[in-house]
Amino acid sequence: MGEKNLLPNKQIILKNYVQGCPKESDFELKTTTVSTEIPRGSKGVLLKNLYLSCDPYICHLMRHDSQSLYILSAIVPGSVVRGPGVAKVIKSGYGKLKEGDYVWGVTAWEDFSWNFYPEKLLVKIQITQDVPLSYYAGILGMSGHAAYVGWNEICCPKQGEIVYVSSGAGGVGHLVGQFAKMMGCYVVGSASTNEKVDLLKTKLGFDDAFNYKEGDLRSKLNKYFPKGIDIYFDNVGGKMLDEVLLKMNINGRIAVSGMISQYNLKKPQGIHNMFSLIEKRLSLRGFMGPDYINTYPQYVEWAVKKLQEKKLVYVGDVIPGLENVASAFVGVYHGHNIGKRIVVVAED
Amino acid sequence: MGEKNLLPNKQIILKNYVQGCPKESDFELKTTTVSTEIPRGSKGVLLKNLYLSCDPYICHLMRHDSQSLYILSAIVPGSVVRGPGVAKVIKSGYGKLKEGDYVWGVTAWEDFSWNFYPEKLLVKIQITQDVPLSYYAGILGMSGHAAYVGWNEICCPKQGEIVYVSSGAGGVGHLVGQFAKMMGCYVVGSASTNEKVDLLKTKLGFDDAFNYKEGDLRSKLNKYFPKGIDIYFDNVGGKMLDEVLLKMNINGRIAVSGMISQYNLKKPQGIHNMFSLIEKRLSLRGFMGPDYINTYPQYVEWAVKKLQEKKLVYVGDVIPGLENVASAFVGVYHGHNIGKRIVVVAED
Repeated sequence: MGEKNLLPNKQIILKNYVQGCPKESDFELKTTTVSTEIPRGSKGVLLKNLYLSCDPYICHLMRHDSQSLYILSAIVPGSVVRGPGVAKVIKSGYGKLKEGDYVWGVTAWEDFSWNFYPEKLLVKIQITQDVPLSYYAGILGMSGHAAYVGWNEICCPKQGEIVYVSSGAGGVGHLVGQFAKMMGCYVVGSASTNEKVDLLKTKLGFDDAFNYKEGDLRSKLNKYFPKGIDIYFDNVGGKMLDEVLLKMNINGRIAVSGMISQYNLKKPQGIHNMFSLIEKRLSLRGFMGPDYINTYPQYVEWAVKKLQEKKLVYVGDVIPGLENVASAFVGVYHGHNIGKRIVVVAED
Repeated sequence: MGEKNLLPNKQIILKNYVQGCPKESDFELKTTTVSTEIPRGSKGVLLKNLYLSCDPYICHLMRHDSQSLYILSAIVPGSVVRGPGVAKVIKSGYGKLKEGDYVWGVTAWEDFSWNFYPEKLLVKIQITQDVPLSYYAGILGMSGHAAYVGWNEICCPKQGEIVYVSSGAGGVGHLVGQFAKMMGCYVVGSASTNEKVDLLKTKLGFDDAFNYKEGDLRSKLNKYFPKGIDIYFDNVGGKMLDEVLLKMNINGRIAVSGMISQYNLKKPQGIHNMFSLIEKRLSLRGFMGPDYINTYPQYVEWAVKKLQEKKLVYVGDVIPGLENVASAFVGVYHGHNIGKRIVVVAED
């Protein structure tokens, strides 16, 4: 294999297992090369990465006791960080993808990535004129589809119900709140800053919103939910979930989408108010969007239409440069993002 | 109202709010009288109590911070203890019940009880020759129906699945295990003594069973569920639930039926392994039988047939005498019952 078959490749490497909150020092930038030859007999696809999605659950894969999480395998020190993103196909051994195609799915924090399971890990993007390609790292990719699946398949919503979305200004939460409003629900979101609270109330159409960091959590919930909660879309877990259990109405549903408050704890906080499940006949259900991948085409068609009609607002929090992905990612755990945080590796 | 309209009535009174495990000293026997006159304009039904069901959740109604639990209201010190049982109608202001009818439903720990909401709280028993009346305080009453509902409506079982029933020798658990076997599942139960474990394996047809008090819980679960758990029917809550979360298989279901290990704690144990809900897309659902009361007639018809065919075994743990109800009830928290514990107030 001659040098002409190699491309320079900047990579973000996990230096050590993550403990507590991930820190920038857990990662390092390394410049290597990548072969452009398709291994014989493989379905390998060489991707030029464009947009990377900073998804909080990735941290869960970086711990010393991590197992694979569905389609994502554990990330061990010394290896490049894998995660979802948008990329352009530059070589393909897979019949359904050709050079120049755009895809979203599982890629890695580097300029170029080989993907050897394209049928399972990549989705071809049908380019639409007035929708930026970066949206496929957010609203039209994994987070948007997760919001859609969680809302429609897990929450079993009915018009007029009272809905609470924690991490309401997050990549998933800000969409769920809008989906709930479209269905005629009363929607309250929580967020970590007053700026985000304003965004929910003014730009995203939430009925109300509060800063969960100000004051006592139980009082806040009592204030914002005088009639209780029918549906809780949980992005945070921990103490918030525990308190919300006490505010749930009979036959309430809780979609367990994420636990950003917990990923970084050595031992997750205990949930004590489980008797509410019996007392109020609650359902608590975890889910992952990819289980419902068959609903993706209908979702993306619907979402693109809503975006074009300006009936759906997508808040992307865009950070330029692969070299900034570690700090962008770490910032998500501290609530620095407003909406879906993505990193631009290349524009095309 | 003359003395001829009064009946002597022994009652078990709650003396004080229950803290921790209920103790015999939390209750006292009092002899009073009860009027046999139907209050004008009421639907009141005067019941002669026959069999009382010692249901663990009743304790939850006796705490100082208790709220009503569905059709059962909180029990305050100085009042008679209410709970489910079987009774004979001796006076009736309710058109659908007449003197001499037998009912099951909400009654109280006393010889005679007035029930003013018979349409909601009482179910008329259709007498079947070869089924003892006492069964309506167990398998053909609230516990049996709860087992049926929990298994069929909440567990969404499929043939061949791996099922774990905690409190497998309890009033609900010993039935759930048999229902699961009838559906072709692999069923393991746990119990607090080797005698109960034997009962599960020999008389009740469980595939396997273990004494959860012997040895380390995690090792036990690893040993008895090498292929994980698809369905967990939870009667105990707390640490057991927390450990089981780690053993659940993808798309597993947990029916939250009871939390006998938790009712008596000042603060319930925390459940830490909630991330399993996302990782394995689990559902955790609380329920109460009475929500599905419309399925009761079909259940009782089915169960009576199975009992007559000897394809279903009911284990009743029968304690004689109203004066023993407090100790019988307290014993349930210490695992003294084998099967469904009931107390005989009168034979007819």
